[in-house]
Amino acid sequence: MTKLDWIAADWGQSHLRVWGLAGHSVVQSAQSGHGMAQLSRAEMEPALLELIEDWLPEGQVTPVILCGMLGGAKDWIEASYRPVPCAPLGKALVQAESRDLRVSLHVVPGLKQTTPPDVMRGEETQIAGFMALNPDWDGVICLPGTHSKWAHISAGEVVSFQTFLTGEMFALLSEHSTLRHSLGGWDEAGFAQGFDESMERPERLMARLFSIRAQTLLHGQDTGYARARLSGLLVGAELAATKPYWLGQRVAVIGAKDVAQAYATACARLSVPVTLHDMADMTLAGLGAARAYLPQQHRPQAH
Amino acid sequence: MTKLDWIAADWGQSHLRVWGLAGHSVVQSAQSGHGMAQLSRAEMEPALLELIEDWLPEGQVTPVILCGMLGGAKDWIEASYRPVPCAPLGKALVQAESRDLRVSLHVVPGLKQTTPPDVMRGEETQIAGFMALNPDWDGVICLPGTHSKWAHISAGEVVSFQTFLTGEMFALLSEHSTLRHSLGGWDEAGFAQGFDESMERPERLMARLFSIRAQTLLHGQDTGYARARLSGLLVGAELAATKPYWLGQRVAVIGAKDVAQAYATACARLSVPVTLHDMADMTLAGLGAARAYLPQQHRPQAH
Repeated sequence: MTKLDWIAADWGQSHLRVWGLAGHSVVQSAQSGHGMAQLSRAEMEPALLELIEDWLPEGQVTPVILCGMLGGAKDWIEASYRPVPCAPLGKALVQAESRDLRVSLHVVPGLKQTTPPDVMRGEETQIAGFMALNPDWDGVICLPGTHSKWAHISAGEVVSFQTFLTGEMFALLSEHSTLRHSLGGWDEAGFAQGFDESMERPERLMARLFSIRAQTLLHGQDTGYARARLSGLLVGAELAATKPYWLGQRVAVIGAKDVAQAYATACARLSVPVTLHDMADMTLAGLGAARAYLPQQHRPQAH
Repeated sequence: MTKLDWIAADWGQSHLRVWGLAGHSVVQSAQSGHGMAQLSRAEMEPALLELIEDWLPEGQVTPVILCGMLGGAKDWIEASYRPVPCAPLGKALVQAESRDLRVSLHVVPGLKQTTPPDVMRGEETQIAGFMALNPDWDGVICLPGTHSKWAHISAGEVVSFQTFLTGEMFALLSEHSTLRHSLGGWDEAGFAQGFDESMERPERLMARLFSIRAQTLLHGQDTGYARARLSGLLVGAELAATKPYWLGQRVAVIGAKDVAQAYATACARLSVPVTLHDMADMTLAGLGAARAYLPQQHRPQAH
């Protein structure tokens, strides 16, 4: 097996995903459910080492570049936010203490925006990956998920961005609300219906949410149609609010397969041209781009 | 003690409240946490009898008039919905079986609207109580709560109504979401801020919700301000969507004290004239008005 010379790590709220690389080639990969939300500070380094320990070459210090939620103030490593407008990667990574001398830990800082107040952690790395793969690209990047982000990219910088609670709202309503008894499965026609309703009258969202329940009680509405309509209502509300972002722009959607496809469908209904990009691929490309900012001794050799 | 001749009951998702009356005079009252959400069908009659058993006069059948969630299809008593436009009370109550021969049970049916689909159960009784106390009143009645209702009243009928998930959404976000760490207490200035933001750009709600979290992370925002702002954002979204209801109308707000006051504050910011009415008073007046539709032997005697 090829010897790895660095490790990439993406640490979200609900997962930890790691790759061992030789240059640009992935030679190992692993993941666990040890997301930031479940871990105390003392459990973090062990959760990382558990996945990568067997990969570490003897007699050298392997750099690990990390992105994601772990940079938050209460977490293992305090990585301060960089203010936009700025490039998605700064020229300095934040070095973190490690008790294990076989690794050195380097965290990609998140981005912040003062007005309107906003933050991102992890998405800046996906954006950096996309920009490394698409140099000189201007436009809008949409990163759907628990907290969907829209970022305006120009001249190599993130100019502004805005976060929506869309994915979390879908989960809350599906799992904890009165609507939960009305939802199950997926009927694409419901998504289109809900999306068009929200685009037309986005201010009616709270009433339309209740109408899902009323439709079930009065007309025995299909649960797959209802669930897709709920998603369409929420994505529609997001697209209605982000019109200043996407109108007349090209849009790159970076996300997990199903959710990215739903946003692509939504954009197609608005005749907005989109390209789809895999989230893990972009993360890995972004962490690869961040290698250039490692301390001198860990940087990739110029050929 | 005056002998009671009928019993009024309001059965919500989270509570059961009962009154023993002699004509219009309350001679007993009690409540419990045995709301519909916690009870199986078999537990319902015992939960009611537990509160009223000691009040029942010997040697006669006492009528109990009930309103609220218990009329739902899966519950103890199936009381079908009456379609609007119609008077808030029909000329027939739905009689329910009782195993205890000392009581006869009569349920006020809810209201339904076909387009847009909507339902109410319990609020029709509050509306009936308000109309009994304010004959010949035309206007709009707002009933804030878990599922806020707006009803257009004309010529003694509920012409149309619309339900909003506002109160439930506030509870979901306060208890289960990422925002929960940012919220606690109440600062009135936050309510005004959130309300004005939503009235101005209601379509931005999902982004503004995330900004509560960002404000906390970036600027250490006060939790009381944040919680009141969340409430203001949601109430503002509701008022923005109900403009066709309240614009140029007089509005009666029926609700529990704190929430009714918040809606009155909101309406005052829009220069909409409102009157405030206690929810329990209106429920009791509505159940009193429903006595006229009991079977002949239970009706109040004309004087």
